[in-house]
Amino acid sequence: MAEEIARNAHLASTVLKTLSDKQRSDALHSIRDALLHSKDSILAANRKDMQNAVDNNLSSSLIKRLDLSTNGKFDAMCDGIIDVAKLEDPLNKVTLATQLDDGLDLYRLTCPVGVLLIIFESRPEVIANISALAIKSGNAAILKGGKESLNTFQAMSSVINDVLQNKTDVPDNSIQLISTRGEVADLLKQDSYIDLVIPRGSNALVKNIKENTKIPVLGHADGICSIYLDKDLDVSKACKIVVDSKTNYPAGCNAVETLLIDKHLDKSLETQILKSLLDAKVTLHISPDLLSQIDESLLKEYVDQITPASEDDFRKEFLSFDIAVKAVENVQDAVLHINAHSSKHTDAIITENDKTADVFLKGIDSSGVYWNCSTRFADGFRYGFGTEVGISTNKIHSRGPVGLEGLVCYYYQMRGSGQVVGDYLGGGGTRVFKHKSLDPSSVIL
Amino acid sequence: MAEEIARNAHLASTVLKTLSDKQRSDALHSIRDALLHSKDSILAANRKDMQNAVDNNLSSSLIKRLDLSTNGKFDAMCDGIIDVAKLEDPLNKVTLATQLDDGLDLYRLTCPVGVLLIIFESRPEVIANISALAIKSGNAAILKGGKESLNTFQAMSSVINDVLQNKTDVPDNSIQLISTRGEVADLLKQDSYIDLVIPRGSNALVKNIKENTKIPVLGHADGICSIYLDKDLDVSKACKIVVDSKTNYPAGCNAVETLLIDKHLDKSLETQILKSLLDAKVTLHISPDLLSQIDESLLKEYVDQITPASEDDFRKEFLSFDIAVKAVENVQDAVLHINAHSSKHTDAIITENDKTADVFLKGIDSSGVYWNCSTRFADGFRYGFGTEVGISTNKIHSRGPVGLEGLVCYYYQMRGSGQVVGDYLGGGGTRVFKHKSLDPSSVIL
Repeated sequence: MAEEIARNAHLASTVLKTLSDKQRSDALHSIRDALLHSKDSILAANRKDMQNAVDNNLSSSLIKRLDLSTNGKFDAMCDGIIDVAKLEDPLNKVTLATQLDDGLDLYRLTCPVGVLLIIFESRPEVIANISALAIKSGNAAILKGGKESLNTFQAMSSVINDVLQNKTDVPDNSIQLISTRGEVADLLKQDSYIDLVIPRGSNALVKNIKENTKIPVLGHADGICSIYLDKDLDVSKACKIVVDSKTNYPAGCNAVETLLIDKHLDKSLETQILKSLLDAKVTLHISPDLLSQIDESLLKEYVDQITPASEDDFRKEFLSFDIAVKAVENVQDAVLHINAHSSKHTDAIITENDKTADVFLKGIDSSGVYWNCSTRFADGFRYGFGTEVGISTNKIHSRGPVGLEGLVCYYYQMRGSGQVVGDYLGGGGTRVFKHKSLDPSSVIL
Repeated sequence: MAEEIARNAHLASTVLKTLSDKQRSDALHSIRDALLHSKDSILAANRKDMQNAVDNNLSSSLIKRLDLSTNGKFDAMCDGIIDVAKLEDPLNKVTLATQLDDGLDLYRLTCPVGVLLIIFESRPEVIANISALAIKSGNAAILKGGKESLNTFQAMSSVINDVLQNKTDVPDNSIQLISTRGEVADLLKQDSYIDLVIPRGSNALVKNIKENTKIPVLGHADGICSIYLDKDLDVSKACKIVVDSKTNYPAGCNAVETLLIDKHLDKSLETQILKSLLDAKVTLHISPDLLSQIDESLLKEYVDQITPASEDDFRKEFLSFDIAVKAVENVQDAVLHINAHSSKHTDAIITENDKTADVFLKGIDSSGVYWNCSTRFADGFRYGFGTEVGISTNKIHSRGPVGLEGLVCYYYQMRGSGQVVGDYLGGGGTRVFKHKSLDPSSVIL
């Protein structure tokens, strides 16, 4: 069953990748129209999911995420499909062109990755968003939603499947929606058909998937972000940035979890910055050596919010109003600490010193390295990508917030007129390659 | 031990990535000078390996690969290091620049992947080539050579290590050469320090490594390349291309293994093309339905070179003067066959029909898709990359021949002046992002 789903997705991808941008975008308009047309029945299914969630005593935040009916969420979901349709076509862009010889040209073109397996938890609007991103980028997708949104998921699936079967040039199996849990384990074994797994959900979900498949996984299992406070910082910027990075949305993967302080930072400035966090209701987990030097009055005033840090606290994603704090020798020491402890997500330095900033910006291994701004900017919408599939902490392929570009790769096209290697030097012959670079933007294929 | 090696490589990479192109390239010049200076002692060690190979009755082709002393191989190896030093710096290229707001700019820059584990078999000159590529691309590398070249490997290691310790800005542990076999299994477990494994050698080696690590692997386990002969082909091009693709170097991963023939191709043209392969001493493994229609005179004249194909022959990398041959309905059928059977390496169509070529070029999933030229062109030198690390059949990150660019990825740098997300729409505030695209080539960081 899983093999059949994966093979069908592969076959669909072979056709989908050859469609024009107009054919792919038209399909998105048809899906949007059909979802709007079926709004009542989808929201009725959604009410069932909500009732089940209440009956099963699920948390109110989960129930809120399930709800498609309030705050214009349903219409926003439909608008989002059109936003994706309007984005620039990510496919068939020529990124390299070389004339190898007379009548023998090499081109590098962007192309879809192939077949995506996307696993997500409760939010039902993800179905629309992911279907749009997959079709626009020419990738076939197998979608598996959470059991809490099963009814909504099935109602939306039947609408999308009906549109693909009857009203678009996109092959039926380009988007397959599966709802039974057992199938995921089998799908994770289909590495000959599935090219990339994208888990959207809890860190536990992502970790579990990474450990159970040979297929490349795009995502992040942790968001352990750090801020380094340099001795040459501007204190008002520092206070504003650390408070925003920690408290704007502590459950976000781009919230800061570790604060590293230059030992040579003026003690009164340090106190001022820590106080701004304490006033924002943040609990500081301070390493013992730094704790022994903390301002006495702070310790008295915020006795319940200051606690000694353990070594583990510097590898922890708190996702709450907590932060680990430690002193470091200098920027090099901060870079070493971060590269050894962070999850390669996003890290920031606060300094007015250009040279110190340069050491940090060049030395940190993470997908986002910031200077004098909040780690919370790590987000596809804020980066201007229009939308995001997720944030990747991988070291290869796509890093950081992943938009449409993160779902494409490239291939080499060679166009000849009968050339063979045996005629060239190194292959047995005497001809020499020209290797003349052409301007990719002038190439029309 | 493996963990220490991997951690040391990681620490070295943190420094190496911050060095300038001049510092990295100067180190390559020092390594070249030192290798030339120690030529006699390295060749003496190489003679020991050759003698051991003779004593152990190894194949003459293996002994030939081991030999560093003939055909100017040693000097060419040293020249190759300088060729890499001269290549354009692949690091710190700005590939995207966006003004998010006044004083808040986002840049995407190329950066090293991090730590590479490179495993190769007998050819000792690979040590010099790979060390040069790693240092030039700012990646730390752990190198493991084959046991047949152990003495040469140790002699070259000691020269390279001595140079890095005493004569360059590149940290000592940027290149670590290990020679015991047991360490590889342990190194493959160091996924928190090692970012990419590059196996260079037999398909068995690559397959084995892919099955035994969670670290991404760059390489190809198979090279099953196909050529499709369309009905609208030019027969002289077809004969030349199929013979070159099959016989120029049959042991190469870019040699053709499968020939698909359009059922509507004129029978006399088909016979002419098959005859050209037979005359070049190629054995044809022909699918039963096509075999029953083969020209009688061919069957008589080449009775020892024509045999029925099994289904397995169409998933086989012969690496010899053998080819599997099959008839297909049309170009769509060829695309489906190739996408289902090939190893995503390189596939070609022979046709004079632009529209048919377009279907093939757009539909094939492989990293190389060719029109009217030999599959043997799939090679980093022929592509004009100056050098190659290997050929990748992965669907993500690097595909096809991988040069320096394949060893880099990217990160996002953000430069602000105190901005926080809480001030912006969506984060709790009212400011709106500008998202103004800047010309990356005009950015100086």
